[in-house]
Amino acid sequence: MGKRKNSLTGLITLLTDFGYSDTYVAQMKGVILCINPEARIVDITHSVAPGDVISASFLLGGAYKYFPAGSIHLTVVDPGVGTERKGIIVRTRDYYFVGPNNGVFTFPLLHEEVNKVVNIDIKRFSSVSRTFHGRDVFAPVAAGLSIGRTPEEYGNELDPAQLVKLDEDRPVKTRDRIYGKIIHVDNFGNLITNISEREISGSGLKVRVRGRTITGLSRTYMDVKSGELLAIINSFHLLEIAANGRSAQKILRAKRGDEVVVFIKR
Amino acid sequence: MGKRKNSLTGLITLLTDFGYSDTYVAQMKGVILCINPEARIVDITHSVAPGDVISASFLLGGAYKYFPAGSIHLTVVDPGVGTERKGIIVRTRDYYFVGPNNGVFTFPLLHEEVNKVVNIDIKRFSSVSRTFHGRDVFAPVAAGLSIGRTPEEYGNELDPAQLVKLDEDRPVKTRDRIYGKIIHVDNFGNLITNISEREISGSGLKVRVRGRTITGLSRTYMDVKSGELLAIINSFHLLEIAANGRSAQKILRAKRGDEVVVFIKR
Amino acid sequence: MGKRKNSLTGLITLLTDFGYSDTYVAQMKGVILCINPEARIVDITHSVAPGDVISASFLLGGAYKYFPAGSIHLTVVDPGVGTERKGIIVRTRDYYFVGPNNGVFTFPLLHEEVNKVVNIDIKRFSSVSRTFHGRDVFAPVAAGLSIGRTPEEYGNELDPAQLVKLDEDRPVKTRDRIYGKIIHVDNFGNLITNISEREISGSGLKVRVRGRTITGLSRTYMDVKSGELLAIINSFHLLEIAANGRSAQKILRAKRGDEVVVFIKR
Repeated sequence: MGKRKNSLTGLITLLTDFGYSDTYVAQMKGVILCINPEARIVDITHSVAPGDVISASFLLGGAYKYFPAGSIHLTVVDPGVGTERKGIIVRTRDYYFVGPNNGVFTFPLLHEEVNKVVNIDIKRFSSVSRTFHGRDVFAPVAAGLSIGRTPEEYGNELDPAQLVKLDEDRPVKTRDRIYGKIIHVDNFGNLITNISEREISGSGLKVRVRGRTITGLSRTYMDVKSGELLAIINSFHLLEIAANGRSAQKILRAKRGDEVVVFIKR
Repeated sequence: MGKRKNSLTGLITLLTDFGYSDTYVAQMKGVILCINPEARIVDITHSVAPGDVISASFLLGGAYKYFPAGSIHLTVVDPGVGTERKGIIVRTRDYYFVGPNNGVFTFPLLHEEVNKVVNIDIKRFSSVSRTFHGRDVFAPVAAGLSIGRTPEEYGNELDPAQLVKLDEDRPVKTRDRIYGKIIHVDNFGNLITNISEREISGSGLKVRVRGRTITGLSRTYMDVKSGELLAIINSFHLLEIAANGRSAQKILRAKRGDEVVVFIKR
Repeated sequence: MGKRKNSLTGLITLLTDFGYSDTYVAQMKGVILCINPEARIVDITHSVAPGDVISASFLLGGAYKYFPAGSIHLTVVDPGVGTERKGIIVRTRDYYFVGPNNGVFTFPLLHEEVNKVVNIDIKRFSSVSRTFHGRDVFAPVAAGLSIGRTPEEYGNELDPAQLVKLDEDRPVKTRDRIYGKIIHVDNFGNLITNISEREISGSGLKVRVRGRTITGLSRTYMDVKSGELLAIINSFHLLEIAANGRSAQKILRAKRGDEVVVFIKR
């Protein structure tokens, strides 16, 4: 991290599929605070569907960069816990990422240059359960990094080429169309697509989703009549299908993976 | 705030309708911590129904005053984001309130004297999205106030008369009756009304709701038999319909807005 | 606590049945921060079913020990609020426990030696509501302890024999069988039993639950084919019924209290 001093922030973010009704998240926080009583811990979310690595990666990809340089992003969506899947530390210029090597860091690493990857050696930890490396391995690693330990203290370097990556699943472009899809449905029922602003900006366009066609881009959610569908560039700089004061998801009965086609006027 | 020093607490509360499954709240926290790494952030709730400004205002009104003087209450229930609706800073003796000028501060401001209102000038911010002023405008403002910036740095004063206010919807009193209604259903299924303790205290009374009549005020939830309905003055100093060990909401199939009539014995 | 200095951590954990959609938890946090602006507050969970003291106790029992010595565990699942039920402070070597004397500390106190119990005298508090001692009594007590006040400042000692205890509900062993039951269903649909590792470790075994029989213990969730049931020793050191990539709860339509029988090969 060059002159940036990681230990100055002591900020650890947490993203898991543990939900809010169990104590798994609290156990991790307790472990962190035993190692670094000054750690600041911020929840990103714990509502990822169990084992949904793709969703976790998308969510992390949209949030990680709003945190201060030096932050440690601890991500535990880990259906392979206890198997031969590796645990890793990924160091980029501004951040550490700590978690299983199962592709969960794919989205953030699209935008970050990887400086170093370390394969966490769990033999260096005492009393590691086979079902909860979040508590027994990853939390201690994140807490250790937050007090200035180096990644190398936790294992040997791993060739970055061995980072597991999810299929990027980018939209397909033809001369006058873009074939994308819904990659996330948010709390408002907004349908977030994998089509980015720069692929469509400035164009007059139509958007087709679930048999419905939307004409033009709105600038705000209230640009259309109450209850009506609209297309908008959202705060992720992605094309989003929404509705004024309603859930686009409910109107369209849409779900993640549904196709979205943009017709570009030329 | 006179001699009270706002920057001493650095405490920012958050109340939104963003839910717990997205990263919008975390993005706001990241932005705050970039500006004030020492900020303390406390979630009030993020489970407000999408766009439900009335509920958000009621919830904030019941919680804000338990926080230390100097706290900054950042509230983002903002269906009009990106339109001409204003963003505001409201300064009272003990607190700042930051969010959209859509009435969401109505309930707390029933109890607070407004010292100053500032109309946030979004042109002073860089790269503001049209869909997420919580992250791009309000979080930076709250974080700035927490490090001692003044409201005036964010825009010009606004006449307090221009504060948008929700209808107060106060109960109607006749000689021997009070006509109120349910304004909130809580996690326990308790039905919270808009009828305050001082309007009924000391009176022998009957309460009618959804065709059922409850006689007298209980002092605790266990004053009646298990499973039975009761009326009680709750911790908000409001009349509440509850049931011993059960959900009054389920027993009565009640919902927000339902009428509650108090018959006062004279 | 001997030489351990409680005030050094200022760490308060919170476990309640208040849910995430109301402001009761936030009110408690505000009260704590008015008394100790430096307090660190960690949520254990607030999703306990209303009034479910057994579940709260199990959850606390599985989480409390991961927090640093000196932590104050504030637990409010309190259906008897306002009645004659006592409020207590329990001091063990490493922790304080603060909450109602209704059995909620049963599980943690199975593993902790009780040094002192104090019966909180609510007459020492001003303006105590009858419905929310979490905010009006227990939060101030926890915050006070976090700044170095002693338990004795809040009331007289109580004979530890007067601590209310839940039935332990331990498994019954015969020569070749253990009759236990499901004591918690977690976010993944894993079925956590009251049968501990040491009762079965090393044995070849079969597990019967809801008419299905599972042979042998798995070491990881992926030891069986995708979607299949397995038995495993979990991170609580308890026998757990799970499924690879699925919810065992859904497969078996199991619920808390269902019988689990272990057949031990001898």
